[in-house]
Amino acid sequence: MELIPKETILSWDRFYRGNFINSLSGYKSVSLIATVDKKGNPNLAIFSNLVHLGADPALIAFVNRPREAAPHTLQNIEATGLYTINHIHPDMVLRAHQTSAKYSTDVNEFEAAALKPEYVEGFSVPFVKESRCSYAMKLIEVIPIKHNNTFLVIGELQQVRLDTTIIRSDGFLQLDKIETVASLGIDAYYKPQPLARYSYAKPGTIATNLDEFTV
Amino acid sequence: MELIPKETILSWDRFYRGNFINSLSGYKSVSLIATVDKKGNPNLAIFSNLVHLGADPALIAFVNRPREAAPHTLQNIEATGLYTINHIHPDMVLRAHQTSAKYSTDVNEFEAAALKPEYVEGFSVPFVKESRCSYAMKLIEVIPIKHNNTFLVIGELQQVRLDTTIIRSDGFLQLDKIETVASLGIDAYYKPQPLARYSYAKPGTIATNLDEFTV
Repeated sequence: MELIPKETILSWDRFYRGNFINSLSGYKSVSLIATVDKKGNPNLAIFSNLVHLGADPALIAFVNRPREAAPHTLQNIEATGLYTINHIHPDMVLRAHQTSAKYSTDVNEFEAAALKPEYVEGFSVPFVKESRCSYAMKLIEVIPIKHNNTFLVIGELQQVRLDTTIIRSDGFLQLDKIETVASLGIDAYYKPQPLARYSYAKPGTIATNLDEFTV
Repeated sequence: MELIPKETILSWDRFYRGNFINSLSGYKSVSLIATVDKKGNPNLAIFSNLVHLGADPALIAFVNRPREAAPHTLQNIEATGLYTINHIHPDMVLRAHQTSAKYSTDVNEFEAAALKPEYVEGFSVPFVKESRCSYAMKLIEVIPIKHNNTFLVIGELQQVRLDTTIIRSDGFLQLDKIETVASLGIDAYYKPQPLARYSYAKPGTIATNLDEFTV
């Protein structure tokens, strides 16, 4: 084990440091966020910094980079209050990565990345048809992070679109069955394999591995 | 594909709904957060909602549940301004899970979970000795999330303690080499396997899989 002090990290060039810091916090739940502008024109972009805030109410948040770096998704969400978040599986991961390219406002990233929108009744923003697990969100709050001009975008769950065979008897979603990928750093994608599912931990007893947790 | 409306999700019992919503947002970078109180007594707890905020300055945040549900870590961080975040690998995942038990304030979770503290010069909070990748943080801001009484705890990177053989030539940390685990939902742990690492995406060209990305 080696110790790397802050001064060393600050001395690195920005690309090397960016790769290092981005991977340090670990695996991320990378997903495609779809939005539409006021005229209904769709936008699609890949986001990796999603975070579960709570189940009751069902709140999920994501980090949006500074406006000048990533303007379209946030602008559309502020305009309409709605968006969808779509899991990615290996067959679509290269196309999902392609949405990180800096397309101009008039480009429909669904078309540019060869992914299909899927509209459902009563919700103006499409899901990504290829995705095997998607959810529709309503904006609750945009919290500006003043230290680096990023934003925490908090939404409330509206509906879920998924292959229901992955729902276990206790509500757990066994995402490996639909091959949902995770990301690491800026550009790496991983396929998680099940390791263990443990019982509720209590002082003085050792949790046990729940049965039936198999690939 | 099935659509599950919000009304159905709200009708579920809270344990089923909790498992469902917690897994919906995807894989999480579960880690052990170590703190000390003002007297130097250590505390250790598992957290799964970590998020990368930016590389310059190097900011990483985590979600702390409401104070009544998870008081000790946040209280210690507010008292000392310092904490460490420690990756988990398969040999220590059951012990790490055990730190989620509700121990009273006077219990040292390092001892309760059979994990060892490792102190380094100039930093009052220990790392987890068993961890193969850890980082020391300084508190920057605690942002209350008013909608469910959780908190976004933002810290700035101070130093990193890791097995440097996982650092790739461009700064990327190949975490599968040290078997860092990811979590899913409330109680599941996964081992991610490398899938692809893609070049920077640009409009009009297709990204390529970077070479050398192997297990």
